[in-house]
Amino acid sequence: MDEIQFITGGVTAAKGFRASGEHLGIRKNRSRRDVALIVSDVAASAACCYTQNLVKGAPIAVTKANVANGMAQAIICNSGNANTCNANGVEIAEGMCGLVEKYTGAAASDVIVASTGVIGQPMSLEPFTSGLEMLAAGLDYGAEKGTHAAEAIMTTDTISKEVAVGFVIDGKECKIGGISKGSGMICPNMATMLCFITSDVAISPAALQAALSGVVGGTFNMLSVDGDTSTNDMVSVLANGMAGNAVIEDVNSAEFATFQTALRMLCERLCEIMAKDGEGATRLLTCSVVGAKTMETARLIAKSVVKSSLLKSAVFGADANWGRVLCAIGYSGADIDINKVDVDFESRKGSIAMCRDGAGVPFSEEEAKGILLEDEIFVLVTLHEGDVTAKAWGCDLTYDYVKINGDYRT
Amino acid sequence: MDEIQFITGGVTAAKGFRASGEHLGIRKNRSRRDVALIVSDVAASAACCYTQNLVKGAPIAVTKANVANGMAQAIICNSGNANTCNANGVEIAEGMCGLVEKYTGAAASDVIVASTGVIGQPMSLEPFTSGLEMLAAGLDYGAEKGTHAAEAIMTTDTISKEVAVGFVIDGKECKIGGISKGSGMICPNMATMLCFITSDVAISPAALQAALSGVVGGTFNMLSVDGDTSTNDMVSVLANGMAGNAVIEDVNSAEFATFQTALRMLCERLCEIMAKDGEGATRLLTCSVVGAKTMETARLIAKSVVKSSLLKSAVFGADANWGRVLCAIGYSGADIDINKVDVDFESRKGSIAMCRDGAGVPFSEEEAKGILLEDEIFVLVTLHEGDVTAKAWGCDLTYDYVKINGDYRT
Repeated sequence: MDEIQFITGGVTAAKGFRASGEHLGIRKNRSRRDVALIVSDVAASAACCYTQNLVKGAPIAVTKANVANGMAQAIICNSGNANTCNANGVEIAEGMCGLVEKYTGAAASDVIVASTGVIGQPMSLEPFTSGLEMLAAGLDYGAEKGTHAAEAIMTTDTISKEVAVGFVIDGKECKIGGISKGSGMICPNMATMLCFITSDVAISPAALQAALSGVVGGTFNMLSVDGDTSTNDMVSVLANGMAGNAVIEDVNSAEFATFQTALRMLCERLCEIMAKDGEGATRLLTCSVVGAKTMETARLIAKSVVKSSLLKSAVFGADANWGRVLCAIGYSGADIDINKVDVDFESRKGSIAMCRDGAGVPFSEEEAKGILLEDEIFVLVTLHEGDVTAKAWGCDLTYDYVKINGDYRT
Repeated sequence: MDEIQFITGGVTAAKGFRASGEHLGIRKNRSRRDVALIVSDVAASAACCYTQNLVKGAPIAVTKANVANGMAQAIICNSGNANTCNANGVEIAEGMCGLVEKYTGAAASDVIVASTGVIGQPMSLEPFTSGLEMLAAGLDYGAEKGTHAAEAIMTTDTISKEVAVGFVIDGKECKIGGISKGSGMICPNMATMLCFITSDVAISPAALQAALSGVVGGTFNMLSVDGDTSTNDMVSVLANGMAGNAVIEDVNSAEFATFQTALRMLCERLCEIMAKDGEGATRLLTCSVVGAKTMETARLIAKSVVKSSLLKSAVFGADANWGRVLCAIGYSGADIDINKVDVDFESRKGSIAMCRDGAGVPFSEEEAKGILLEDEIFVLVTLHEGDVTAKAWGCDLTYDYVKINGDYRT
């Protein structure tokens, strides 16, 4: 497999993708971009995964219909209003697609449409009707425009989130770039928060969907900020083939493996960035489970640990309360021998043993404090039952999480 | 069925139960009682439900063995240390039972033993060895001693929790009284936090267990402060028969129904008190689901709503963010038609419609604020699919929850 490297950029890193992001007036604050537009020069293979929440935003229904044939060419996404639980939601989402066709030439039926923000707030098409021409006129291949798109989909995010990777297939330089948003209502289930990925790799729609579906379970589905699965989660990939490699169709090929590994690296990095920017978060909390018998066991435990409100509060307080890790393992639903479990806390400052064979071991509070005061905390859970590993990403629970969500609508 | 009434008192309300609660030295703070002792004059029918957490406190194992024959006579419980994930935990718990036998005469094998506090902290038998004689000497039938026992099992609780009910069976005055603790790590699963209930009703062990098991699912299992299921949860009932009624053995009898209804009333009230005293809580959050097709559906939805960190934060901020209710219904796992769902917010100040047929309806923000600023908030979810109802109890998520759990061990 060829080497895969992180490169600068986001959705415009791959060949043939233009982007734009402006303030069209969904938000009251004029200094915040609120609509992102991403367009491929040619029709692209498209793959999506969606929220499993029974309540689904109207844009999800429209996007599903539009990508049913495995192809798409444009993405439009607004922040400031989730267009969910509104009686005329589908009409609005279809109206957005129609305006994309009018001003970019991409067919309305080739548009991926998404919305994020408050649920159940009436939404108007007016800002799109009056502003989409300007937004489309601003479309460009430059990295700066990719960043504008990343900024336009932010809600309570404090930083915009862009990642890109480069690699070689068939001697051709290939790239994948992605942007995502999400710092609250984050607990993707068989899907994810909003994430838009572009690639110039030539790959069939079926192989692209297989690559994405294979990656989501170990990346976005292992991310939790607050245990709340959003109604509008979506991750989508457009691959337009402009890198010029032979079209990847065989999911057992080396080329597919390279593409999927690159996609996984990109998604893992986005997860890490999103968890660290979780609402109110001061620390990234990662849990690695090793030595599991099955992937299900490893994932159940890793996610249960990063979701525990008690452990998250202790991480905020840099308190080595490892008993809460054991407790979260115990109620995770995983079938393991708790008397074989080891727990260690780690950070850049070092590693410290907390628990061996399910029982506490003596440790220096001072040393533990030193490790836990860092901004990236790792909890290592060793099961000694097999060789399967899994990782989950989360963050600490802070005063600011409560503050942000105490009056989110105003 | 005879009338059932709330009466004053707790575990000493029923005939033949003495209690005591003192500071024996588990906690450093000498002004806090830390061991409770409850003794029945005669051996009593006993029923327990335990945590389903795979990590179980050592006292749970010892209690299970002791009540295997359906009988018990005494309860000992300490706060300040959970005696969990300690290598010598069972030895300590058995030592506690032995000391109860030595100083009260109740057989060690008839003792229900429990511990609550920090997990994984070494624990010594010494405070019990040196202090149990004094604790036993203080046993008394008075209400004041029942309160001492209630105080001795508190951890982060801000108030002690006692409830008692009185009713008549066979023309005999009967009573049930209970104490409980718990304001964090509260999300009982087929079990509960710590709750000790005493009754003078004559009832067989099998009927007592049936009564308790039938009540727990709709009461303690519907309570959540933070979604964390403790390792030491236990609810136990002792019924010593001293009311003089004919022994209840038939679970289809009117007498069993009276007893179980009284027990349910007592447990519901304790749930309400515990939720309202949830760690850091400023508001009680109750969700009632009506019109469900099945009990499973009603309970899944009610509990999902009171567990949502986002809704809990909004309740703290008195923000009518009803979309978060819909979102929590959507990811609850319940199979319902979301387009038929109605949502109302209620408090002493009134009731306000938020959502009809799955879509938002216009409402006055001012009126909503007035309702949500009360200290007891009800969320009414109407499914229009059947006639089953369920209720769940929770509380808001506040700065103080984070503060309390940021440095719980110190």
